[in-house]
Amino acid sequence: MPTMVDSTVQQWQACIDACLKCMQACEECLSSCLKEPDVQARTMCISMLRDCAQLCALSAQMMSRGSQYAKQLCQLCATICESCAADCEKFQDTHCKQCAEFCRECAEECRKMSA
Amino acid sequence: MPTMVDSTVQQWQACIDACLKCMQACEECLSSCLKEPDVQARTMCISMLRDCAQLCALSAQMMSRGSQYAKQLCQLCATICESCAADCEKFQDTHCKQCAEFCRECAEECRKMSA
Amino acid sequence: MPTMVDSTVQQWQACIDACLKCMQACEECLSSCLKEPDVQARTMCISMLRDCAQLCALSAQMMSRGSQYAKQLCQLCATICESCAADCEKFQDTHCKQCAEFCRECAEECRKMSA
Amino acid sequence: MPTMVDSTVQQWQACIDACLKCMQACEECLSSCLKEPDVQARTMCISMLRDCAQLCALSAQMMSRGSQYAKQLCQLCATICESCAADCEKFQDTHCKQCAEFCRECAEECRKMSA
Repeated sequence: MPTMVDSTVQQWQACIDACLKCMQACEECLSSCLKEPDVQARTMCISMLRDCAQLCALSAQMMSRGSQYAKQLCQLCATICESCAADCEKFQDTHCKQCAEFCRECAEECRKMSA
Repeated sequence: MPTMVDSTVQQWQACIDACLKCMQACEECLSSCLKEPDVQARTMCISMLRDCAQLCALSAQMMSRGSQYAKQLCQLCATICESCAADCEKFQDTHCKQCAEFCRECAEECRKMSA
Repeated sequence: MPTMVDSTVQQWQACIDACLKCMQACEECLSSCLKEPDVQARTMCISMLRDCAQLCALSAQMMSRGSQYAKQLCQLCATICESCAADCEKFQDTHCKQCAEFCRECAEECRKMSA
Repeated sequence: MPTMVDSTVQQWQACIDACLKCMQACEECLSSCLKEPDVQARTMCISMLRDCAQLCALSAQMMSRGSQYAKQLCQLCATICESCAADCEKFQDTHCKQCAEFCRECAEECRKMSA
């Protein structure tokens, strides 16, 4: 990861990394869910993954630029990550289980960062 | 980074990582450029950083989901990263020099990925 | 729509409008597809809608800022819009038919703009 | 604008339109600010415009898909739009004055939508 020139961004690095991992996991998990035979049962999970991926991506961008609104966006991101994790945990496949873990970790980092 | 369930995404991991590092570097560099005393001289660089950060972010998302258009987007991303690197290299400060390096690396990965 | 201060952006206004309408239509259509009883048959369409919505959104942003890369992004956007229209046209419901129309109009405007 | 198939999205249409107009105005205004001779005095305004444009874009996307988190994102969007308007109002040029108006209108619609 880039060497930070700004101490504000530097202290958010763990949260930036968690958001980017969660973004990638959500995008992958959504694509994998669309290939599952029981996609009909996963539509709520798919909707959550769509929101979660975009919130994580924007949160990472806002933190990277040191935005004064990064904390407020990360608070919402934490809420969405928790919901997304709960939806993913309903399914037994590897991508949903892994995605749920990344969502929980991201929610935890977003809560710490915005505390 | 997440364990890949899909081999297409797996082979793009180096490019995803390069795009996300470049995205962060561009967002940081833009914020740092705005704080420099010679910001007037940096307006072209700032415009490039704005485009580069967003192209890198979207390229990473499209690769993460295994999009069939990821290669075409990464081709454009490579072009923009090279231009952004050239603009950043005109300045002597640490953030521009570092950002230029991340842009060059990202351009290289995007070219390899879309070859 | 905002009164344009910049003549470059002004001449792109029809394309910006088409991209924003298409973005909205794709987001709505994707949500509607997820509620259909034959969602299993729509997974390719859903993947196209996901890409198309984001390309349209970014194209509109890049045109609005007068980016020198707007034309190249709009060329790719035209390609994706055409594919998305073709996928939506396979379905008989109102949201897919309407979305296909917005995609065709957007593709046409993107081709004109980037010619 | 697309004929809405979903009544939730339909009732948000005024807010979607306001967000998209504000997004465009902010992107244009940022590019115009970068061309002003007193760009040095505008760096806080430029940072606000950067955040405001992206929040408006994502809010419009989340509303278009009928997201259950659209209201919470629009609450934050209202806050950012108000701050951006206040920063733009410090400048006398046409693009800042117009942008401030679009920001105020967007903030008002976001408050109504999320009430």
